[in-house]
Amino acid sequence: MSTIRLTVWNEFRHEKAKPEIAAIYPTGIHGAIAECLKKEKGLEVRTATLDESDQGLPDEVLDSTDVLMWWGHGAHGEVEDSLVDRIQARILDGMGLICLHSAHFSKIFKRMMGTTCNLKWREIGEKERIWVIEPGHPIAEGLGEYIQIPHAEMYGERFDIPDPDTLVFVSWFPGGEIFRSGCCYHRGRGKIFYFRPGHETYPIFHNPEVLKVLANAVNWAAPVNGPAPTFGNYKPLETVPVAE
Amino acid sequence: MSTIRLTVWNEFRHEKAKPEIAAIYPTGIHGAIAECLKKEKGLEVRTATLDESDQGLPDEVLDSTDVLMWWGHGAHGEVEDSLVDRIQARILDGMGLICLHSAHFSKIFKRMMGTTCNLKWREIGEKERIWVIEPGHPIAEGLGEYIQIPHAEMYGERFDIPDPDTLVFVSWFPGGEIFRSGCCYHRGRGKIFYFRPGHETYPIFHNPEVLKVLANAVNWAAPVNGPAPTFGNYKPLETVPVAE
Amino acid sequence: MSTIRLTVWNEFRHEKAKPEIAAIYPTGIHGAIAECLKKEKGLEVRTATLDESDQGLPDEVLDSTDVLMWWGHGAHGEVEDSLVDRIQARILDGMGLICLHSAHFSKIFKRMMGTTCNLKWREIGEKERIWVIEPGHPIAEGLGEYIQIPHAEMYGERFDIPDPDTLVFVSWFPGGEIFRSGCCYHRGRGKIFYFRPGHETYPIFHNPEVLKVLANAVNWAAPVNGPAPTFGNYKPLETVPVAE
Amino acid sequence: MSTIRLTVWNEFRHEKAKPEIAAIYPTGIHGAIAECLKKEKGLEVRTATLDESDQGLPDEVLDSTDVLMWWGHGAHGEVEDSLVDRIQARILDGMGLICLHSAHFSKIFKRMMGTTCNLKWREIGEKERIWVIEPGHPIAEGLGEYIQIPHAEMYGERFDIPDPDTLVFVSWFPGGEIFRSGCCYHRGRGKIFYFRPGHETYPIFHNPEVLKVLANAVNWAAPVNGPAPTFGNYKPLETVPVAE
Repeated sequence: MSTIRLTVWNEFRHEKAKPEIAAIYPTGIHGAIAECLKKEKGLEVRTATLDESDQGLPDEVLDSTDVLMWWGHGAHGEVEDSLVDRIQARILDGMGLICLHSAHFSKIFKRMMGTTCNLKWREIGEKERIWVIEPGHPIAEGLGEYIQIPHAEMYGERFDIPDPDTLVFVSWFPGGEIFRSGCCYHRGRGKIFYFRPGHETYPIFHNPEVLKVLANAVNWAAPVNGPAPTFGNYKPLETVPVAE
Repeated sequence: MSTIRLTVWNEFRHEKAKPEIAAIYPTGIHGAIAECLKKEKGLEVRTATLDESDQGLPDEVLDSTDVLMWWGHGAHGEVEDSLVDRIQARILDGMGLICLHSAHFSKIFKRMMGTTCNLKWREIGEKERIWVIEPGHPIAEGLGEYIQIPHAEMYGERFDIPDPDTLVFVSWFPGGEIFRSGCCYHRGRGKIFYFRPGHETYPIFHNPEVLKVLANAVNWAAPVNGPAPTFGNYKPLETVPVAE
Repeated sequence: MSTIRLTVWNEFRHEKAKPEIAAIYPTGIHGAIAECLKKEKGLEVRTATLDESDQGLPDEVLDSTDVLMWWGHGAHGEVEDSLVDRIQARILDGMGLICLHSAHFSKIFKRMMGTTCNLKWREIGEKERIWVIEPGHPIAEGLGEYIQIPHAEMYGERFDIPDPDTLVFVSWFPGGEIFRSGCCYHRGRGKIFYFRPGHETYPIFHNPEVLKVLANAVNWAAPVNGPAPTFGNYKPLETVPVAE
Repeated sequence: MSTIRLTVWNEFRHEKAKPEIAAIYPTGIHGAIAECLKKEKGLEVRTATLDESDQGLPDEVLDSTDVLMWWGHGAHGEVEDSLVDRIQARILDGMGLICLHSAHFSKIFKRMMGTTCNLKWREIGEKERIWVIEPGHPIAEGLGEYIQIPHAEMYGERFDIPDPDTLVFVSWFPGGEIFRSGCCYHRGRGKIFYFRPGHETYPIFHNPEVLKVLANAVNWAAPVNGPAPTFGNYKPLETVPVAE
């Protein structure tokens, strides 16, 4: 199999506006993720950000992207609908999409889910335990029974998403909440993975287990060379008297 | 349980434009369905059509609708996006949606699925056998192993939809195709059922078994009085030292 | 629809051996459940226990049971394999099965799942919060966002079960665990619901919300009059040249 | 990743008893499959048959098998229950299982499913079209929209199995039937794939597309190095006042 081509997209605003976030992610969240996945996981990685031309994703980039990873938080509304249209079309044609944490509210995730993708949240730096629910799934490769994150923003159910095709992770928070944290979907010829952990004010994207999940998810979400369906008017088998 | 309030929506164009269709459905497809479900199945039924004011679905109608049944074919593009927004919000808040046949391409179905909902088709009046795949599902109540329809438009896979939460029916056509014909989805607090059979040039909505499925589907899709989730910032349990 | 005939089965040993359990459930766990579901929920309820003849479930009882509810804990091994065979056959023919708490390790549940059904546990009387994950499901009818139980035995993931057809509840425990607490399955023409809460040393089966879930689950799991599939050699349509 | 170790098991009776079957599969069905998957697909392949000692699968073989492929037809009843127990335990611990055609009635498949696995059948050498339903699934890699087999034994729904975690293929037969032909399941840490095509009197296991599916399925079903869950009594987090 040829090398998987990953594009990590980030709205890249927090890191420029707040020194305490820049201190954690000096090259941006996208930079931290891209660096690890390129050096340690053998992927071909590009990055793209909101303020670049074509919001970072002109056709030539999307067309050569196998898996798109998405971080957004404060600027979801600035992403152009025409870009969302183009990403949706690419996913349905096979490109993988991985949405991180606050990307639950990104236009592209809501478009693909058909629901509000709303949830509960709380930001007091509490602990998170991410339990592996489906230990035979490739996204759980190399993990222990759970990943524990010392300080995280809480997300709690009801998470308004369609029932995942496969639920890989469920999170626990000390304040009384649980959350479906690792959700796999087939959509068209493409695959989507939502992964909850990650917040701009905590070094979660430096956590080796979190990065392991991201690498596993890229491998899972990469396109397979399956059939390209044809649509429209279709001829019957010649041998069958369809209208006897 | 109080009586279920069903609204049957129809774009209602074919029946006015083509005498041969009007001959089959003199009061419209919506009229045929509504009449049966009201008289025989004990539902409270209204109808609504595209050319009425607010495209038939002002807020006061949607707000008092438990299940919305949708027929569209040639005028999908005329349905206003703002109406699609309002229907989506109602579904996520609990209203059931039943999409019939060519409504696979309606704006509201595509919105809820997140995919193209495209498929293969052929119109030569061939036979259809609709097999029950999940015989313990309430939508299969009162049916035999299959429903056979003498003349139908063919729809064939690949049907570009998300994997249904429950697949109740799969159709067979003599020309060589199969189709996932009865597809159940939970979305938000609401439920969606797609049912393939039905075509404006065949009397399929006079078929007692098809009407039985529609009545079953309305019962299945009706709102349950489940919890209304709260979203947003959320307090922890008082007794837990979340940030030790 | 005619009245649903529920049989509540209990191994009924704890209540006879331990006065502190008898104090909570003077007529047995089965007695407490049966009394409520009969008086308040309008079901036709019988009870059956391990030490009765035919272990409480002769053919004439099973044959007239729409839904079987199962409590077992210390005596799973005493249930005869031939009884498990008979219950499995009835489920596949449409009878509902509801397994409570420690019945995760019952022979019949393991038989139907094909897995070990093993889990983590801890018994220190901690709090449980049972979150509703699928608020549009009929088993969630009449509930709030969660059920809170002041003192419960903890069950934790990995729960070795097949991915449920629908996951209705997920539990939270203060010690760091989560658990898929309300799991729906179609098997054959029948339906199975596993519900986690309930322990012989806590008055959980006197909790009105827990009893509400049990009543909802009985309604959901009751047989529908769907098709009885035929198996074996099968004739083709006459009009089709199958071996051209 | 190290080479996947596949064991192809065959009851290997037809081929010895009937010259016309031996003419198609001179080294047995297992031999035909093993040869292709070894030479062309780079797998490490062993074979095992019913009449060998320990019915071909002593512990040392099972313990060094990543994926077990199973063909059985006339001698299901001769497979010892203790062997079924050992295979089930290996699957739950991560080994993949691929059941071919008439292995729907094997003891191990029925054990893993919890249902009768019964179906309709007809043997008149009719055509089969196997449609790809989920084109983004790795088992569909390298295929067209359907596989067409000129002469096959028909299997028809209702197929009494649990709803697959992923449904990859659905078959069409000219006589009026459809069938869920490619069914994926997670069970424990292991994965199971049922694949319908294949019959001892047709050269289906020489068909390159069928063999492509088998190779894809082996890759999908191979164990991932996911977590090995722990079960039993479990300690809480120290920081949490569980029984306040």
